[in-house]
Amino acid sequence: MKIGIIGGMGSAASVRFYDMLIKKFQERGAVEDFEFPEIILFNLASKGLNAEGIKDEKIIKKDILKAIQCLNMCEIEKIIIVCNSVYVYLDYFQKFSDANILNMPKLAMDECGFFDFGVVCSRTTEKYGIFSKSKFHCSEKDQSTIDYIIARIISGKSTIDDMLLLEEIIIAMQMQGAKKVILGCTELPIILKRRLADIVDPCESVIRDILK
Amino acid sequence: MKIGIIGGMGSAASVRFYDMLIKKFQERGAVEDFEFPEIILFNLASKGLNAEGIKDEKIIKKDILKAIQCLNMCEIEKIIIVCNSVYVYLDYFQKFSDANILNMPKLAMDECGFFDFGVVCSRTTEKYGIFSKSKFHCSEKDQSTIDYIIARIISGKSTIDDMLLLEEIIIAMQMQGAKKVILGCTELPIILKRRLADIVDPCESVIRDILK
Repeated sequence: MKIGIIGGMGSAASVRFYDMLIKKFQERGAVEDFEFPEIILFNLASKGLNAEGIKDEKIIKKDILKAIQCLNMCEIEKIIIVCNSVYVYLDYFQKFSDANILNMPKLAMDECGFFDFGVVCSRTTEKYGIFSKSKFHCSEKDQSTIDYIIARIISGKSTIDDMLLLEEIIIAMQMQGAKKVILGCTELPIILKRRLADIVDPCESVIRDILK
Repeated sequence: MKIGIIGGMGSAASVRFYDMLIKKFQERGAVEDFEFPEIILFNLASKGLNAEGIKDEKIIKKDILKAIQCLNMCEIEKIIIVCNSVYVYLDYFQKFSDANILNMPKLAMDECGFFDFGVVCSRTTEKYGIFSKSKFHCSEKDQSTIDYIIARIISGKSTIDDMLLLEEIIIAMQMQGAKKVILGCTELPIILKRRLADIVDPCESVIRDILK
């Protein structure tokens, strides 16, 4: 299997995704190097994004497209973009590749089934309605907290306080009635060390899809 | 900075290297995505290597060359191959790229300075004399243990017993007189959780070189 990963949005989230993917292959019995997937991972250093999500549409589209075009030359079969916000341009990106760009946010929503779910994500992922079917959303105050937490995770400065703040926001959403909560920003699961019930991590959803 | 990483030999070692590199940029104050390096990482799924190192010279050379040629198209400045054994072909690989392929084993040996040092590595890294200036080497019995440990790390099956066995071999080498011990296989540092004195990790050496 030949997999393309487009990441660096932020870098720590891509490290986590790559790590999860390799561990999953180990769990499934990969022993020799050739039993692992062939992966080409792009860690973009784009000026098109910041902790709130998309900052400059033109730049981020150009940067991701450059990676897609390189992946096209390498005969990649499946592409995963490790950032939920940019899936707002999925149709645009898909036009430039014969490889299947896996729709990570959709896969996460599919996992919620018929349950009413909420989403905790970046400001622009929320604004662009990436998790359109979500019934529960962060308040402006909580969104500001999440923006702050995401920035701290990208820079490697998060502490246990950030985890507790995130947990509080998730649990409040569950108490409002959310049966599932999607962690709709790839940075957030990095700090959620305790396994809370009914959390959906889009990275896990997309890895399940890769392996099916 | 544009960095090429050629890995998947094994995959867990590449995950660790990528993680270390990103964390180092975080430590140095990278906050926004564009403050991290642009990286293209190849996780090869080569049949040319196994836990003892190089199994088929022709295959591994062809697979690494394919990655180098793709990196050439992406205007990469520095390339790191995350596997010590294959540095036996460094001169050959370097002919195919204008990017500087960093000599990881040499950088690790440079770090030992004038100290007498030993090396714990894969069977073929030893056989090809990659750490040529090393004064202390594993006995045949210890090498068999190391082969076994490397295989377990690649497949994600290593336990604390593997760590203790590795520590024992390192400490025995130090008691024989080695002032430094190079962990000359990129898998080995994955399990060495306790920080032993005077250990040189070639991955750390090469990251220091990237950042200087």
